[in-house]
Amino acid sequence: MTHATTVWQANRSGGLTGAEALIETSLAAGVDVCFANPGTTEMPLVAALDSVPGTRAVLGLFEGVCTGAADGYARIADRPAMTLLHLGPGFANGIANLHNARRAHSPVFNVVGDHASWHLAFDAPLTSDIVSLASPVSGWVGTAASGVGLAQLTARAIAAATAAPGCGATLIAPADFQQEVLTAPVDVELPHPRSRPEVAADVIDAIAKRLRAGERAVLLLGGAALDERGQRAAARIAAATGAVLYSETFPAAAERGGGLPDLDRLPYFPEKAIEALAGAQLVVLAGALEPVSYFGYEGVPSLLAPSGTVEVLSTPEEDGALALEVLADALGAPEPAPQPRPDDEGLPDGALTPQSVGRIVSVLLPEQAIVSVEGGTCGYPFFTASSRAARHTALTNTGGAIGQGLPAAVGAAIAAPDRKVVALQSDGSAQYTIQSLWTMAREQLPVVTLIASNRAYNVLRTELGRHGQSRPGPNATALTSLDGPAFDWPALARGYGVPGTRVETCEALRRELGRALAADGPQLIEMAL
Amino acid sequence: MTHATTVWQANRSGGLTGAEALIETSLAAGVDVCFANPGTTEMPLVAALDSVPGTRAVLGLFEGVCTGAADGYARIADRPAMTLLHLGPGFANGIANLHNARRAHSPVFNVVGDHASWHLAFDAPLTSDIVSLASPVSGWVGTAASGVGLAQLTARAIAAATAAPGCGATLIAPADFQQEVLTAPVDVELPHPRSRPEVAADVIDAIAKRLRAGERAVLLLGGAALDERGQRAAARIAAATGAVLYSETFPAAAERGGGLPDLDRLPYFPEKAIEALAGAQLVVLAGALEPVSYFGYEGVPSLLAPSGTVEVLSTPEEDGALALEVLADALGAPEPAPQPRPDDEGLPDGALTPQSVGRIVSVLLPEQAIVSVEGGTCGYPFFTASSRAARHTALTNTGGAIGQGLPAAVGAAIAAPDRKVVALQSDGSAQYTIQSLWTMAREQLPVVTLIASNRAYNVLRTELGRHGQSRPGPNATALTSLDGPAFDWPALARGYGVPGTRVETCEALRRELGRALAADGPQLIEMAL
Repeated sequence: MTHATTVWQANRSGGLTGAEALIETSLAAGVDVCFANPGTTEMPLVAALDSVPGTRAVLGLFEGVCTGAADGYARIADRPAMTLLHLGPGFANGIANLHNARRAHSPVFNVVGDHASWHLAFDAPLTSDIVSLASPVSGWVGTAASGVGLAQLTARAIAAATAAPGCGATLIAPADFQQEVLTAPVDVELPHPRSRPEVAADVIDAIAKRLRAGERAVLLLGGAALDERGQRAAARIAAATGAVLYSETFPAAAERGGGLPDLDRLPYFPEKAIEALAGAQLVVLAGALEPVSYFGYEGVPSLLAPSGTVEVLSTPEEDGALALEVLADALGAPEPAPQPRPDDEGLPDGALTPQSVGRIVSVLLPEQAIVSVEGGTCGYPFFTASSRAARHTALTNTGGAIGQGLPAAVGAAIAAPDRKVVALQSDGSAQYTIQSLWTMAREQLPVVTLIASNRAYNVLRTELGRHGQSRPGPNATALTSLDGPAFDWPALARGYGVPGTRVETCEALRRELGRALAADGPQLIEMAL
Repeated sequence: MTHATTVWQANRSGGLTGAEALIETSLAAGVDVCFANPGTTEMPLVAALDSVPGTRAVLGLFEGVCTGAADGYARIADRPAMTLLHLGPGFANGIANLHNARRAHSPVFNVVGDHASWHLAFDAPLTSDIVSLASPVSGWVGTAASGVGLAQLTARAIAAATAAPGCGATLIAPADFQQEVLTAPVDVELPHPRSRPEVAADVIDAIAKRLRAGERAVLLLGGAALDERGQRAAARIAAATGAVLYSETFPAAAERGGGLPDLDRLPYFPEKAIEALAGAQLVVLAGALEPVSYFGYEGVPSLLAPSGTVEVLSTPEEDGALALEVLADALGAPEPAPQPRPDDEGLPDGALTPQSVGRIVSVLLPEQAIVSVEGGTCGYPFFTASSRAARHTALTNTGGAIGQGLPAAVGAAIAAPDRKVVALQSDGSAQYTIQSLWTMAREQLPVVTLIASNRAYNVLRTELGRHGQSRPGPNATALTSLDGPAFDWPALARGYGVPGTRVETCEALRRELGRALAADGPQLIEMAL
């Protein structure tokens, strides 16, 4: 982590508060969006969002909306947003999506108000151990000890968050230091722009040698290596060597469609992933971590690649796309033939199935859309179909904490106001952060939410089957069912100010999705499966 | 914490799983309700909820519903429910309401599935530091190291949770030990029934002496001392000595109405609380903690009682009601005249105000209702009016983590199926755990939810004013407003299967509340303020 030393000065007479110094520093470091759910101990910061102009403040009704939005924002904007959260319990409500952000290596700058430092010892009702709560999801945690410290730690937190590969950084801001009036200029060290170290030449050479020798290879792309350059270089390597390409199973942001290589995701269930990797003599990781089973299943190994086959071309923090290009050049790999054009013929009719949903969404997807995918029901079929869609960016749930898809769509839409966002979302997971719909309505974000409504936690039904419970009893049935009553999704959408409708056939989905994509502002379509 | 040693035996041939041993132990310890939002690593426990009969499993769509329900259940049932949560992120979603449960001293038994122990080192996506997340809200945290350990630690966790004054106990249950098949009986130590130590006689004598000497006294009741016995004894003391009575500001469960003493809550804002205590020479704490300012405000002391006046009659874990009775006897205090009967004359008309809401709800409240109060808008006026209501139990937000009222109503309704529950709830805080409505619908709980709809975080507007921001700027306005768009509460209710309506006048509220209280199952009424 390197820094440029900069002098930051109060640009008004009469001093400024610690809260204003925090906001000015944050703006100077390029952070100008704040996803907020503040309380009493953040009021000086809320006031500072007005007295220091330049930050777009976006209210979430629940903190998981704020943190998930910051994650989605970072994945698209490649820089952090701020979250503003209320003490330990408010922060705790944001942990699940900060867990996903951590797995996505998303830079996120969390600001958590705390009691005035002199009040903390009295253990008032909202007092809690914020450091213990924040540490599992933060690469950096700091507590300010003065108003000046708020400015200085803001710079350090943002530097920590943005240093490759990216992490969450959590600044605890006691209320008295937010209010403290600073009268002298403060020096802060602003972070350098985000950059990734290059991979050493000998690492690339060693892998090139093994590929030239004809080893059966799998190339597993992840993280930043999944951008357009990385994928095109990987396709050259595959064409030249016969290497098989995979994307990591849950990429933070993958460029897809529009003639890019058809990159399958490594399968989710370990038996299938092991099968996919079984023949390899060499498994090359470009920005991806060594693949491990999502859960541990008795008799199934945790590590999915054959023993001794794994080589790291680039770590998540390194410039994997460049490493792939250098590797492709070293192999003398030519440009492969372009992928076929998007295929918009022969759309399915009749009752909706996950496959027909995947196909219809892929075909109707506008150029440069962002697709936030959460849930397996339609997620896997969409990925199968969408390699031939128009060029788009797919976001997935990197950490498995559900309730990520709708907030990520909010953040992505704010990061890229000119792009349409489609949230392809399972019904069960949508419920964890359902309040996202309101933020979409308030900010009039161009997000089309597609709810895959099967009224069950289907993945848990599958898992019960894997545990030999092919006929679940009454409690297991109740705990994996979302019927009794079924959600009325159009009513929920309307309750939050989002126009909503329900479709049961392919024809209706085509019509309503076309209409929703042409509309301004958010829309919701319940797809009855 | 004392235990009876008991031998627990598998009551079936062929052994039982660690998960089944956990459920059998839990049932043997009297825990027979499970508020669950399980995932893959809890599937053996979900299966065990069927193979070991006797537990009522209640699904929450979001973990904060489960933990808040367990808190509400404990406050009414005076024993723990189990929560079943999915790994670190699932637990994290439940932290806010576990924070409230901690401040309420509610016994709660949390079971968190974890990866198979042999899979943990591979840092799969859902791996996280559960102990770091659980510790701030758990009086006891344990991780099982075997199937036998799951049974033994279940008994220890429940003993820790139920030992006075009560706490959250969190058991981390690795998936492989849930699946492990036990073939021999397991010895566990079941907890004794919940009991509270008696206060030493000399403590009571010393306070009696000062009261007899005529010191100006305030008696502050909290925790279990707020039951009927404690209140009646406190009223005798007040009548005999002129002591002023207060309830702690946010009681976990206070008996109210039906002729019980009119016990004001100590005011929320510190200036008013300091004023209320200013004249006291002696502030006696019965089950309450020394009163401190909810937040720290510059120039306002954290401790609210005059220096040197505070004496502890009973701690939260002690038998405060008995101590008050002994103290009343020592003072020779006679039974005071009974309070006037509930007053049902002269109900207000016209537009709804917080005061008219408090009055109407108080008058229409059925005998033995439970009122879950969250939010200040109607909460304070209701407490003012409800001292003359029919006998009821009031639950309040003990820890300040908002989103507590609706889940607590769910848990209270399950703890006391024969009592009506009214959730008197502010609109902003209702949104944090809005999914509670679905559980009310699925379980057909007799909960009438009254939404105080003022479309603002009004307490934050007040706090901005205290920070000199009497005219908030655009960001501060946006961050404290719930308009643009306003929620459509009847639509949200319908979306979750709860009949909902909206009222704007006192007449409409009287009519709709009367109808809702007479109906079976849940109802929601939006009160436009």
